[in-house]
Amino acid sequence: MKKKSDIKDLEKIISSEFKTKRVTANKLDKVLYKPFKVLDHGFIRVIDYMGDDSSIVQAARVSYGKGTKKLNQDKNLINYLLSHRHTTPFEMNEIKFHIKLPIFVARQWIRHRTANVNEYSARYSILDKEFYIPKIDDIKPQSQQNNQGRSGEIEKDLAKHYLSLMKENGKINFASYKHLLNVDEDGKVLDEKRTGIARELARMVLPLSSYTQWYWKIDLHNLMHFLALRFDDHAQYEIRVYAEVMLDLMKKWVPLTYDAFVRNRVNSINLSSEAIEYLKMKIKNKKSNKNNLSKRELENLKRVFDL
Amino acid sequence: MKKKSDIKDLEKIISSEFKTKRVTANKLDKVLYKPFKVLDHGFIRVIDYMGDDSSIVQAARVSYGKGTKKLNQDKNLINYLLSHRHTTPFEMNEIKFHIKLPIFVARQWIRHRTANVNEYSARYSILDKEFYIPKIDDIKPQSQQNNQGRSGEIEKDLAKHYLSLMKENGKINFASYKHLLNVDEDGKVLDEKRTGIARELARMVLPLSSYTQWYWKIDLHNLMHFLALRFDDHAQYEIRVYAEVMLDLMKKWVPLTYDAFVRNRVNSINLSSEAIEYLKMKIKNKKSNKNNLSKRELENLKRVFDL
Amino acid sequence: MKKKSDIKDLEKIISSEFKTKRVTANKLDKVLYKPFKVLDHGFIRVIDYMGDDSSIVQAARVSYGKGTKKLNQDKNLINYLLSHRHTTPFEMNEIKFHIKLPIFVARQWIRHRTANVNEYSARYSILDKEFYIPKIDDIKPQSQQNNQGRSGEIEKDLAKHYLSLMKENGKINFASYKHLLNVDEDGKVLDEKRTGIARELARMVLPLSSYTQWYWKIDLHNLMHFLALRFDDHAQYEIRVYAEVMLDLMKKWVPLTYDAFVRNRVNSINLSSEAIEYLKMKIKNKKSNKNNLSKRELENLKRVFDL
Amino acid sequence: MKKKSDIKDLEKIISSEFKTKRVTANKLDKVLYKPFKVLDHGFIRVIDYMGDDSSIVQAARVSYGKGTKKLNQDKNLINYLLSHRHTTPFEMNEIKFHIKLPIFVARQWIRHRTANVNEYSARYSILDKEFYIPKIDDIKPQSQQNNQGRSGEIEKDLAKHYLSLMKENGKINFASYKHLLNVDEDGKVLDEKRTGIARELARMVLPLSSYTQWYWKIDLHNLMHFLALRFDDHAQYEIRVYAEVMLDLMKKWVPLTYDAFVRNRVNSINLSSEAIEYLKMKIKNKKSNKNNLSKRELENLKRVFDL
Repeated sequence: MKKKSDIKDLEKIISSEFKTKRVTANKLDKVLYKPFKVLDHGFIRVIDYMGDDSSIVQAARVSYGKGTKKLNQDKNLINYLLSHRHTTPFEMNEIKFHIKLPIFVARQWIRHRTANVNEYSARYSILDKEFYIPKIDDIKPQSQQNNQGRSGEIEKDLAKHYLSLMKENGKINFASYKHLLNVDEDGKVLDEKRTGIARELARMVLPLSSYTQWYWKIDLHNLMHFLALRFDDHAQYEIRVYAEVMLDLMKKWVPLTYDAFVRNRVNSINLSSEAIEYLKMKIKNKKSNKNNLSKRELENLKRVFDL
Repeated sequence: MKKKSDIKDLEKIISSEFKTKRVTANKLDKVLYKPFKVLDHGFIRVIDYMGDDSSIVQAARVSYGKGTKKLNQDKNLINYLLSHRHTTPFEMNEIKFHIKLPIFVARQWIRHRTANVNEYSARYSILDKEFYIPKIDDIKPQSQQNNQGRSGEIEKDLAKHYLSLMKENGKINFASYKHLLNVDEDGKVLDEKRTGIARELARMVLPLSSYTQWYWKIDLHNLMHFLALRFDDHAQYEIRVYAEVMLDLMKKWVPLTYDAFVRNRVNSINLSSEAIEYLKMKIKNKKSNKNNLSKRELENLKRVFDL
Repeated sequence: MKKKSDIKDLEKIISSEFKTKRVTANKLDKVLYKPFKVLDHGFIRVIDYMGDDSSIVQAARVSYGKGTKKLNQDKNLINYLLSHRHTTPFEMNEIKFHIKLPIFVARQWIRHRTANVNEYSARYSILDKEFYIPKIDDIKPQSQQNNQGRSGEIEKDLAKHYLSLMKENGKINFASYKHLLNVDEDGKVLDEKRTGIARELARMVLPLSSYTQWYWKIDLHNLMHFLALRFDDHAQYEIRVYAEVMLDLMKKWVPLTYDAFVRNRVNSINLSSEAIEYLKMKIKNKKSNKNNLSKRELENLKRVFDL
Repeated sequence: MKKKSDIKDLEKIISSEFKTKRVTANKLDKVLYKPFKVLDHGFIRVIDYMGDDSSIVQAARVSYGKGTKKLNQDKNLINYLLSHRHTTPFEMNEIKFHIKLPIFVARQWIRHRTANVNEYSARYSILDKEFYIPKIDDIKPQSQQNNQGRSGEIEKDLAKHYLSLMKENGKINFASYKHLLNVDEDGKVLDEKRTGIARELARMVLPLSSYTQWYWKIDLHNLMHFLALRFDDHAQYEIRVYAEVMLDLMKKWVPLTYDAFVRNRVNSINLSSEAIEYLKMKIKNKKSNKNNLSKRELENLKRVFDL
């Protein structure tokens, strides 16, 4: 968004205002189109949305009007629907984002197949010279507990060394990219005496840390599914920070659903039949049989229930 | 919608007006919530929508602003995207309908799995005494050509006889339904001395012609797929009339996409390799080999190309 | 399946045997094609399947060979995948059923959109004269607790009266159907002097209790989602009995996954943040605040934890 | 697959043989598990499949037995189903592949959302030092006609220069990766005095040309959709070569469907209403109005019909 034309387009669209008969979520409407910064070069912008809390109630009741009754009844209905996994009314709301993100994050993200996506094509256009460099505190060793995560500390000097290696690596890659294309970001030929190679080929020397961007549209039910998985300790930090921003935006959009979601999903736990037996004994102050619980399950129970 | 409370809810929602930064399709916005009559008791209402023609362009360009350039460029881009099956930009628009329709139509309709649906539940509520009776001219014999369709004529008196049988059949079914429930449409007990049976059981004596209703939400790409199949000679008349109304609504919503859709899908033809060979010979005024064409394919070519 | 040609086809296919390099689940293979009776005229048959427990392990490990290690390690991996909602390895197994079921059950069933379906077409063929009549013990009044269910008793004589009304209703409907078609089940014209109406029209006088049949194919992850919802107290009895048979078949197919599923889904509970707080206090023998729990949630906790 | 354990696993699974009642496609069964080489380090292996041509017929007829009649009738039915877009019977067959492919190809591939995927995780495991280097003849300049493709020639010496730059770039990236991890491919620590960083972080210095691998399962209808788009002149060469191998495998699996697919999709053309008008005039030897055709559409018609 460094280009002047982009900034001008953005300013114009932010100041737009129309009249509509459609249900409008004022708090979200106010921040429409505005980029919220994520990581070093990324962002999330809400481009459009459909429905609010009342639309969920309206769909659940298949009503002629808004379907809402008293605030308290709506709140209880939404909580009931969410906790009993009546998912279809939440599918009736839709949100569309414009997101800029590193390619290795995009590769995790795209595994959620229930969204609609238009990605910036590196076959068609030349990518900006932007790649992700973590903050020094986010550089961590491989976790010893979690085979998929990071934890612990690395001494500052070593971390700095790793960061400068990453930067160097990215610079070399983008220099190769430019040389192979023989064209700069604005499409100007660099060396008239050479022929560059096609964009679809040149791009493959770029690192996975390169930024891409896409339009991403999803319904509220599937957004919550995405957030439940990605706003989670097990998710990689670099995708979790996107989920955080989206969760805030969800709160502006559908506050009642947000509350029910935090209550029944984000801060919930699913107990297996064996975990139920274990807790039953704990409540009765009897000796609990923990043999049927995995180490991981037991630790999780202890953490959640202060055992 | 015979109930007073429904009519009041409808009037209230039709007169609503809000300010929004969102892209607004004025022609569609004006008819929002308004029921368009289909068959004898059915209707279609647009409840909400997301995006317009410019949103498709915006998504295809992954742009910061509206993405539109000149009207002509937008038109050409939309035509190009649609004819080359670049479907994702059309997925970026969404529309939500409230539809009342006979159950046997709903059973065909639901086979389109890429939509979101909330149906009125006959486990939860009592169905209105409404069932579909065709107009006399729509009563036709089994087609001799098309194993799945109707064509030809039935003499008026016989058709009247069939219609009265259908009416009688429906009346008996709804009388049984009422008797089994021992409750009328407003939930009032009919005979204090009897216990009725559960709604989820009683409903099974109702005919497939009974009306149901649902909220149905779909993206523009999948809507076009639905319309291409259901606004077609091979579709059953009773679903085609719904597709007709939806096609009109689509025209109000996204006129450029509508034009491209009619040009490249509704009035298009797909030619097999053998049909291409056949036409090549016709153009060269040579003898065409029709042995590799099925009878159906040949007839279709003759019809479309006036051969 | 009363027709002689059907019985002959079935016998032939049941006695087939081939050699294959594919992973084979012997217990399931043995009952392939065999109809398991459900309700009065319905059935479930497994037509085909892909994969077994080892295929899940193989996919999770993206391995060159079978991917399995020791039985205990495989069992733990499957339990871990299932309890941590790593759903993709379970999508790697597929099963295909042939099912005969009443139309009102089919209408609930089809709401699961992640399956592949081919239904017997009443536009193309004439339906057999078969409709569902409950057993006398399954005739119950509307539940007072559950707005969507049945519970309590109806006196035998009244229940018999209701059953005979249902039978009468179905007979009238099928007589109307036959008369409108002017053709019997084998396609023989009934009255040469009349013209019948098209099948796509005649069918709409049939009751929702009529039987239909379809081929239904689904992956193991989505099958478990279906079973978790339909093998549940809140599901209607008439669909639950189908889920029961499918659960038995799943046990023959993927016994390790079946165990993990029963442990982590069927007999599990999801606790909201408020329910966690409530149980924490119970464990510490302190006064629990139940104000933040709904009546339903509290009753459920009491039932599950013997409080 | 350079590892000894992989080769051993592969040999074992290739020599397996079981008895089954399931429909078996012998030609495909014979090549099961066998890797077919694609590009410099990639491959495709069929891991499992469900159904053959007869299964499509069986599902379309919702039959008790195999559903097949005479070969010619089956052939015609399959051609009819495919040309009339009756897609559901083709969804009844399923195939599972193990594929090794460059990440930039995987990013295009994954846009097909109707498949099931398990990808090798670079959070969990260390990637092999393998990245794609094109053959010299595949190095081409940006196409002047097609904004997304390559065409024309580059002089050999310049192409060699570009190739060596790509190799150099990849080597630097993998050296950085190894250094950041401080672990080699077998998990052995490289420098005891340093702490490496987590795998989920280190991977982001790798180039988009790096190889990944996944299990990929899809139904036959969606496979054909994938092949129609990717076995096409507009598809990038590096994904087209995978589509070619898959098309050959499809021929072994479902030869009748393969024929119908090539006839009605691969070698077909879709004519817009305007293109139909244009050809009508050509056939009648009248002057055709080409004003309503885009330049691209006109060129395409000329090419296909030798005009």
